[in-house]
Amino acid sequence: MDFTHSPFATRIVEQVRSFVTERIEPAEADYEAELVGGADWTIWRQPPTMERLKAEARNAGLWNLFLPDAAHGASHANVEYAPVAEITGRSFIAPEVFNCSAPDTGNMEVLAMFGSADQQREWLAPLLSGEIRSAFCMTEPGVASSDATNMQATAVLDGDEVVLNGRKWWSTGLGHPHCRLIIFMGKTDPDAEPHRRHSMVLVPVGTPGVRIERMLSMFGACDEPAGHGEVTFTNVRVPSSNIIAGPGRGFEIAQGRLGPGRVHHCMRMIGMAERALEMLCQRAASRTAFGSTLDRLGGNTDVIANARIAIDQARLLTLRAAFLMDTVGVKGAMSEISQIKVVAPAVAQQVVDAAIQVHGGLGMSDEIPLSRMLAYARALRIADGPDEVHRALIAKLELRRQRAGWPAVAE
Amino acid sequence: MDFTHSPFATRIVEQVRSFVTERIEPAEADYEAELVGGADWTIWRQPPTMERLKAEARNAGLWNLFLPDAAHGASHANVEYAPVAEITGRSFIAPEVFNCSAPDTGNMEVLAMFGSADQQREWLAPLLSGEIRSAFCMTEPGVASSDATNMQATAVLDGDEVVLNGRKWWSTGLGHPHCRLIIFMGKTDPDAEPHRRHSMVLVPVGTPGVRIERMLSMFGACDEPAGHGEVTFTNVRVPSSNIIAGPGRGFEIAQGRLGPGRVHHCMRMIGMAERALEMLCQRAASRTAFGSTLDRLGGNTDVIANARIAIDQARLLTLRAAFLMDTVGVKGAMSEISQIKVVAPAVAQQVVDAAIQVHGGLGMSDEIPLSRMLAYARALRIADGPDEVHRALIAKLELRRQRAGWPAVAE
Amino acid sequence: MDFTHSPFATRIVEQVRSFVTERIEPAEADYEAELVGGADWTIWRQPPTMERLKAEARNAGLWNLFLPDAAHGASHANVEYAPVAEITGRSFIAPEVFNCSAPDTGNMEVLAMFGSADQQREWLAPLLSGEIRSAFCMTEPGVASSDATNMQATAVLDGDEVVLNGRKWWSTGLGHPHCRLIIFMGKTDPDAEPHRRHSMVLVPVGTPGVRIERMLSMFGACDEPAGHGEVTFTNVRVPSSNIIAGPGRGFEIAQGRLGPGRVHHCMRMIGMAERALEMLCQRAASRTAFGSTLDRLGGNTDVIANARIAIDQARLLTLRAAFLMDTVGVKGAMSEISQIKVVAPAVAQQVVDAAIQVHGGLGMSDEIPLSRMLAYARALRIADGPDEVHRALIAKLELRRQRAGWPAVAE
Amino acid sequence: MDFTHSPFATRIVEQVRSFVTERIEPAEADYEAELVGGADWTIWRQPPTMERLKAEARNAGLWNLFLPDAAHGASHANVEYAPVAEITGRSFIAPEVFNCSAPDTGNMEVLAMFGSADQQREWLAPLLSGEIRSAFCMTEPGVASSDATNMQATAVLDGDEVVLNGRKWWSTGLGHPHCRLIIFMGKTDPDAEPHRRHSMVLVPVGTPGVRIERMLSMFGACDEPAGHGEVTFTNVRVPSSNIIAGPGRGFEIAQGRLGPGRVHHCMRMIGMAERALEMLCQRAASRTAFGSTLDRLGGNTDVIANARIAIDQARLLTLRAAFLMDTVGVKGAMSEISQIKVVAPAVAQQVVDAAIQVHGGLGMSDEIPLSRMLAYARALRIADGPDEVHRALIAKLELRRQRAGWPAVAE
Repeated sequence: MDFTHSPFATRIVEQVRSFVTERIEPAEADYEAELVGGADWTIWRQPPTMERLKAEARNAGLWNLFLPDAAHGASHANVEYAPVAEITGRSFIAPEVFNCSAPDTGNMEVLAMFGSADQQREWLAPLLSGEIRSAFCMTEPGVASSDATNMQATAVLDGDEVVLNGRKWWSTGLGHPHCRLIIFMGKTDPDAEPHRRHSMVLVPVGTPGVRIERMLSMFGACDEPAGHGEVTFTNVRVPSSNIIAGPGRGFEIAQGRLGPGRVHHCMRMIGMAERALEMLCQRAASRTAFGSTLDRLGGNTDVIANARIAIDQARLLTLRAAFLMDTVGVKGAMSEISQIKVVAPAVAQQVVDAAIQVHGGLGMSDEIPLSRMLAYARALRIADGPDEVHRALIAKLELRRQRAGWPAVAE
Repeated sequence: MDFTHSPFATRIVEQVRSFVTERIEPAEADYEAELVGGADWTIWRQPPTMERLKAEARNAGLWNLFLPDAAHGASHANVEYAPVAEITGRSFIAPEVFNCSAPDTGNMEVLAMFGSADQQREWLAPLLSGEIRSAFCMTEPGVASSDATNMQATAVLDGDEVVLNGRKWWSTGLGHPHCRLIIFMGKTDPDAEPHRRHSMVLVPVGTPGVRIERMLSMFGACDEPAGHGEVTFTNVRVPSSNIIAGPGRGFEIAQGRLGPGRVHHCMRMIGMAERALEMLCQRAASRTAFGSTLDRLGGNTDVIANARIAIDQARLLTLRAAFLMDTVGVKGAMSEISQIKVVAPAVAQQVVDAAIQVHGGLGMSDEIPLSRMLAYARALRIADGPDEVHRALIAKLELRRQRAGWPAVAE
Repeated sequence: MDFTHSPFATRIVEQVRSFVTERIEPAEADYEAELVGGADWTIWRQPPTMERLKAEARNAGLWNLFLPDAAHGASHANVEYAPVAEITGRSFIAPEVFNCSAPDTGNMEVLAMFGSADQQREWLAPLLSGEIRSAFCMTEPGVASSDATNMQATAVLDGDEVVLNGRKWWSTGLGHPHCRLIIFMGKTDPDAEPHRRHSMVLVPVGTPGVRIERMLSMFGACDEPAGHGEVTFTNVRVPSSNIIAGPGRGFEIAQGRLGPGRVHHCMRMIGMAERALEMLCQRAASRTAFGSTLDRLGGNTDVIANARIAIDQARLLTLRAAFLMDTVGVKGAMSEISQIKVVAPAVAQQVVDAAIQVHGGLGMSDEIPLSRMLAYARALRIADGPDEVHRALIAKLELRRQRAGWPAVAE
Repeated sequence: MDFTHSPFATRIVEQVRSFVTERIEPAEADYEAELVGGADWTIWRQPPTMERLKAEARNAGLWNLFLPDAAHGASHANVEYAPVAEITGRSFIAPEVFNCSAPDTGNMEVLAMFGSADQQREWLAPLLSGEIRSAFCMTEPGVASSDATNMQATAVLDGDEVVLNGRKWWSTGLGHPHCRLIIFMGKTDPDAEPHRRHSMVLVPVGTPGVRIERMLSMFGACDEPAGHGEVTFTNVRVPSSNIIAGPGRGFEIAQGRLGPGRVHHCMRMIGMAERALEMLCQRAASRTAFGSTLDRLGGNTDVIANARIAIDQARLLTLRAAFLMDTVGVKGAMSEISQIKVVAPAVAQQVVDAAIQVHGGLGMSDEIPLSRMLAYARALRIADGPDEVHRALIAKLELRRQRAGWPAVAE
């Protein structure tokens, strides 16, 4: 049992922390000013500040750190990248600077693990270099996507082509000016057993029949220039060689894809919660009401203590999940991964909500990032599987594990 | 003890319910389409649909129902208007349709109770007729406004004029094209005892020195065409006859103003929570995952039961506060008014949050009103006094009441 | 809408409050001293103090107030008795003093509503006079009694006798030296539809085949001299005229029995919570730590405010349920009765737990009644139907009510 | 970062687990049967089963494992003993079997760290061998002991003697037939700075002037044969060489004493929570209501998932605190130790409460250990510093740490 980070992680965390503090945070205002926002996503553009920061990060060797793959990435463990991801959670723009932002990270992992040499040359290379971005089309508006077997979109083989039909939404990144690639998931064989029916297909943006309908508003924000897209696929035809790992392997790939992504999301949530707690403390120590600074009033010490406890517990739980992915694999860490997905967004929501309360009116405004943090944390209790689905899985695995030890069911 | 509404309330609630259901809700889409939104508030306009609905409501006699004042209003009790306010909470646009929207209601109450005949003729009349709208400028950006004695703005007498200086924000309604009147609160006599220092002053929008700086974003929404304004007052001069009830009575007026307004806000919260619960149930009963409708899955029955219990409790508590205002007055109902201010927004936030969760991605989007409801409920835990201040008051009154009954403090 | 008590209720509440304060509370220590406690229930006895207090209460006309039955009781409404029940919740011994303690109250209601003239003469009369006490045998150890259809005990007709077999537990009052009557519930016709299978039978204590096995410990207390019994029935024979209202009507009777009883329990919980809050406040105002009294430290003002809010809400909800029982009947108030059963014990548990925390070590000890109050509140989250069953019912009724208003299930 | 236990810990945990499962749990019923319980502590006796189990444990080398002191103990790290303590939390009698029960463990640590050679020979030796037991007298009935500077008892030097006066309570273990030693804390120099005023003194049980007044009931249990004593000291004289580490060092010693003890308590809480969760799952999987096993009804899957998450988080937090004590010392881990003290008892209370609910009436009874577990968990939210004091410390340390990084307090 050793709660210290490896020398590699310690070093890289310090470098990333300096980079975030000294280069990214001071550039946030420029980035915001360069944004072309609003509902009309067709005029969104990539802020030049982002490309400048990306170049700097790449030169500093702080690039693709998320990828524990000796061939393409940094050859480290998930548990070593996790504290790096935490730091990047402090700034909304930091993950992209380090080429570590969703959904590209998950898509690169899929291509690195399951892609053919051709697929890797065509798509993984430009993603790894940060030239292009990508989207992942799984969630659908017409059904409860919490049960992935509900998926209605189709990916039907027709000769040496595969024909895609369906409507997808909440495809994050689809509005980005650099988005070139969609990974689409659809049903190929309705007669196979439930988890062998679907395929994952690489679809270039711009393929005939792909129509981006609009960008969705998420708790009042459109998150430009990445956005969350709604998109229809109408008789979209691509070569069947665009199917990743062959027909029917969609769920298998999706399962593997989600483990690291959830650790990344959760660690970023923790970094965000830390920043919110800092803001809370600084505000509470500097505002005066009823003759005292806020940190000495009412239950605010309890609020601070509970936040510290909740954050520290969530971080430890997430690091453990990362450690288990490294040591026993995603499949062996299913319960632990679901646990962090329930905990980390809830903790972030709790701490950010408390920070807003201490900031009063300012906390609700867009002058400080708290209201947007709240939206992000709240959204993550739905995205990547709602809390309810994760809790159901945790309970099922707990009962299964316990049952194995019971001599016989007693009354 | 009688939990049935009076015949008057029962009748008026039914009329308002029909009006909301049959006229307002079907017109919401038109209203939205007519809005000119966005950050540039100077181009906001009043949707024609609103003026049409206002005329209809006025013709139907459903007008100024909030005002328990025989001279100007409907001559009923607060506890009779409360269930009406609940119904109007179902639609964001309903309160204005019935000329019952904040902050006009509070401002009209102030003018009806404390205004001079001249003040009433000039400002109360056009507000009652729905011709103009108004704003209330109390909260300030530079200090913790939860402690109202922190207020820094000044209203200094100079001959027969009063000179106003200061910066205010979260002045709801200031961006409305019809906004003509500001009620400004500032310090007049810094040497008086703390609650006799401030005055309330009527300021026509457009008076030289009044500068509307911008409209604030509240959890990502600017709530056009009313908005939440930030405004500076620089050597603004108005006749001293514009002071309401004379210098130094600001706190006294503010105190009386807040009682009914809090009941209205809280009943609207409850109406909003009811609508959210309806949406939750309808969605849960119609979506299928893992072979079952959502209402039969996991803890969703608990979610529904807990929502029903929380709403019913909040409603009863709010009705009791209204009843006490009617029977013992605002001053005698201070604890009870603070209690509802803590409870009703929290219940609304809880139920709306649960409804969002059951709706998945749709719940986060702007296709349905849940995300905006969440923002409104969350904001009300800060506006009109943050939860913390109300809980502190409740505890103080509880301890005072109890102490009165203790023989002597025992160890 | 009127939140004031009727003149009758106001008067009787004041009388009962004085009686509790001036006669019962000062006698509690005597009562405790006269108890013969411990696990051996066969030596339990009725403290003479109780009989003295009962005589005084009866002379004062404060007797059988629970019974809204002109023939036998006080001819008042449930909503009028409710505040009386609250006061009696302040002292563990008060309900029996006024002949208003469970399970006798429910048993008397059953006899008053469903009993034959003979049954009333034999059993109702001595119960109303306080001469004897009684028990109610429904819960069984071998099955989940939360689902009453699980009940395994049998009450089989054999000629003009009915033969009882089965094991029951948590039969409160069975250990009382005055306990003479058991109301037993068992299955008579296994082929009837589920809620017509069971009968309720009057069984004199001492009937051959009735064997009291032991008194159960409830969170460490045996609650002498009433106790919670485990009892077996082995071929117990009583005349079939002992069946209340005829065979197969057990569930129907049980349903009606539970409404008033739940209101009583819940109001007593509220009275208990009020007393705990008083103790909390008095302690917090008189103890000093870190240079301040506890009521000014940390989150204690929040604790007090939240307790006040929770108690007031629970009381209003319970009064409404009582009012609905009076006006639309138990059947029409099913959801509301289940709501209070979920809320009131939970509120009592919350407030008592907080009071214990403020009392530190003293709060855990048996020098003050808080630890026993905690046990009582916690037990009531299981007794009379666990929270889970009540929430399930509330949700079911909510969905049913809502469905009635839906035009068609939309997606 | 490594979440696996050391080979030593892994091996010893397995041995202890087998011993607990195979020898202690089967002997629990014998132990209970041998107890002489009740309020009269003077007739309590040590069950022979305990002495038999102690001998077996000692022979198996599973003895004094708590002591990370090469001279007297097992020469391991706190983080290695922690998982052992967890296992012993499964059975109320296990800690004493392994000579690892409070307050002896803390007293032995004090003697090992601060005791003179004579003190160690006289008292540490027989404690390490399990011959005698001991008590720790710090908490007082008359003041808020949460603020230790409130302590009123005195330990005044008089020549080569020290004279003790005062009243102490909640002195756990004082009723044990083997209790021979009291460690008493009292004020020596009222003029020294607050944390240098008190001394810790070794007092043989039986010294004239030491009067054990009674054993306290803790949530209805007297926890025989150890008990929780109230004791008076009246002009008790012992040699001044009985002062540990010299006059005025009481707080310094107490501080060091509490770190490991809190880790032990918290790990035992976690072991207890694990056992409760096992009982919950087994019951839920085997009971049927409304046509389904309980584990499939209502929110029970959420209950199980939330319990799993809470336990795992609490365990990780506690292991981290133990690791920090090993690496940076108690002083450097003050916040982390307070964090676990808040979390672990609360988690145990939550899980045990849920397990009781699933067990219905059985859960409240003394047939299964859940109700006693609830009392133990609840008590620990007060003992060793109430939650409030720990949260205040955590917040203070958090604000201090953060302030160190702020450039200047901004508004």
